[in-house]
Amino acid sequence: MEPALRELWAESRDLLGLPSSSQDATAVPRVSLPPTPLAFLRDHVSPGRPLLVSAAATRHWPAASLWPTASYLTDALRSTAVSLHLTPDGRADALASHPHPRRPGSSRCFASAHVRRVDFPTAVRLIRGSDPAAGLVAYAQQQDDCLRGEYAAVAGDVDAHVPWATEALGCLPEAVNLWIGNAHSVTSFHKDHYDNIYVVLSGEKHFLLLPPTEHHRLYVRDYPAARYVATEQSSEGGRQLRLKLEMEVPERIVPWSSVDPCPASPEELAVQASSFPLYFDGPAPIRCTVRAGEMLYLPSMWFHHVSQSPGPNGLTIAVNYWYDMQFDIKYAYFNFLRSLEINGCSSGKPDASEGDLEEKKD
Amino acid sequence: MEPALRELWAESRDLLGLPSSSQDATAVPRVSLPPTPLAFLRDHVSPGRPLLVSAAATRHWPAASLWPTASYLTDALRSTAVSLHLTPDGRADALASHPHPRRPGSSRCFASAHVRRVDFPTAVRLIRGSDPAAGLVAYAQQQDDCLRGEYAAVAGDVDAHVPWATEALGCLPEAVNLWIGNAHSVTSFHKDHYDNIYVVLSGEKHFLLLPPTEHHRLYVRDYPAARYVATEQSSEGGRQLRLKLEMEVPERIVPWSSVDPCPASPEELAVQASSFPLYFDGPAPIRCTVRAGEMLYLPSMWFHHVSQSPGPNGLTIAVNYWYDMQFDIKYAYFNFLRSLEINGCSSGKPDASEGDLEEKKD
Repeated sequence: MEPALRELWAESRDLLGLPSSSQDATAVPRVSLPPTPLAFLRDHVSPGRPLLVSAAATRHWPAASLWPTASYLTDALRSTAVSLHLTPDGRADALASHPHPRRPGSSRCFASAHVRRVDFPTAVRLIRGSDPAAGLVAYAQQQDDCLRGEYAAVAGDVDAHVPWATEALGCLPEAVNLWIGNAHSVTSFHKDHYDNIYVVLSGEKHFLLLPPTEHHRLYVRDYPAARYVATEQSSEGGRQLRLKLEMEVPERIVPWSSVDPCPASPEELAVQASSFPLYFDGPAPIRCTVRAGEMLYLPSMWFHHVSQSPGPNGLTIAVNYWYDMQFDIKYAYFNFLRSLEINGCSSGKPDASEGDLEEKKD
Repeated sequence: MEPALRELWAESRDLLGLPSSSQDATAVPRVSLPPTPLAFLRDHVSPGRPLLVSAAATRHWPAASLWPTASYLTDALRSTAVSLHLTPDGRADALASHPHPRRPGSSRCFASAHVRRVDFPTAVRLIRGSDPAAGLVAYAQQQDDCLRGEYAAVAGDVDAHVPWATEALGCLPEAVNLWIGNAHSVTSFHKDHYDNIYVVLSGEKHFLLLPPTEHHRLYVRDYPAARYVATEQSSEGGRQLRLKLEMEVPERIVPWSSVDPCPASPEELAVQASSFPLYFDGPAPIRCTVRAGEMLYLPSMWFHHVSQSPGPNGLTIAVNYWYDMQFDIKYAYFNFLRSLEINGCSSGKPDASEGDLEEKKD
């Protein structure tokens, strides 16, 4: 089975015009002007090929000039409550060490953030001060169409939809989300059941991408779900927030990728590489950095890992448009592929049984 | 493996909105007016879903009224030499009994027609008189863009291309072919590496369709190639053509479907059903009859078996437009699928190694 899979990986990258062996940062096709709806559909959506559109496409958005300035958003949203996702290390919806070491079985769990509603200026202060060394990283996000919900006061600063994508896909976006973090927030490998247009407005987002044909390289396995809970503690400077991981009760199982593509130390890299050889011995992930003003089209079902660099305002700010994907023969092929066991690294379950969290992330 | 394949067949039909269990003759989506290029690309080409367009789409073609009349084509082409494909039974590019019964191994071979260039009125006379009982069936066709070649004198009677398909696919057709036969010409199951628009102008074509995901149901196996050769024999009514099958030298191997979906007798059906259970026990092929004036969009890589009924002029006349397909992630998935062995019914070879004949047929 493994040689057939490696052939599939090589052929799909070859047919999509993507490199198999290098870490070429210019691998994703880039255009300076938005494509026509027909060309977008034919050359990107239908074949499943990402596209990067230069900043010219968003130059007319008020957000392009206003949002990077230090005070515009905090003024516009000064009395708005927003959802802030808090973790000790910037890794929400990611694997973490199991909080009950004596529990039999897996030593890792799937950890969700602690979510608090705070006023926007407080959120920005906590995001800017985020630091794993201090045990607190904050990320303002909510994958529930939050730009048109919590952030409605500034939603008019960006286009309500992406006209060429809307015409090509034949529908308006189902959700438009806003994401504000600093360099410490990282999104682990996952996929979405949406065609995704990702627009960076401050700082940069760094994507590692794998086509859906490379499913087995991610070692998707079942993990019990846990959630960070907060306790307030007195300290010298006043009261301080402490986060503690607690297993969900009743138990909930989340299939998630076991692979950390950016381990923190050489020792951890060695452990990962020996545990997940299909990832570390296979073709390098496709790297793509999206800069302020640029738009990335990420086809549905592509695996992506996202890290970020803040702009001069200390923040990475991005908006994404989720369009309903077409469930067609490509999706049937994907489900067949993932049903095949190889070295115990398929969950073996139909795609539809996955947790909502995998379907709705960044 | 087999349960996973059956799940793939069911899911891909379900997602394409095609029936899995009935022989519903209205299974292929039908529209009364041609789709817009964008809708065609989004709803048919990208997902790989056939489409039937009603006769309104070709009402403006001179061919729609002229070609069904008895004498128009024979007048227009009276001194034109055309390629006539001759077989004893109407089955060209199909499996036949091996002409050397003592040869070890397979008892079947892949038989190509005897091709003669004759003037068009002679071709029509031979087609109308075709009858397996007399040992001669003639089919005027040549898969080399013949409408714009041999039949250039009447090529202006049809549109040079299909405007909405051309705009959607971003290219002009690579070939436009003409097909003239009677009820005895049958095309065996095969697939093409083209997006195909098939237009019937006289009579009816009856398609049996299987999506590419059902590859294993066709038991594609390697067969040695043979060719019909002609000998003239004296008979009471003058000289008569006799066809004899001869193996090609040097040997040439053609991978071809082993399945005959319409066996001639209950005994032959019993043999086929026990030899090819994945076909005969699986979901019924999708049936689609294309009537005079109608257009069938057949997505690339779909398996099709074609039989036909003549119009009042004694002929089935059709034109098809082959557009270059997009080799993308769907194609990579297909090649992976076909590389998987199940009950010895995969050729196990990459698609590119197939004979040209499989790539260029009806």
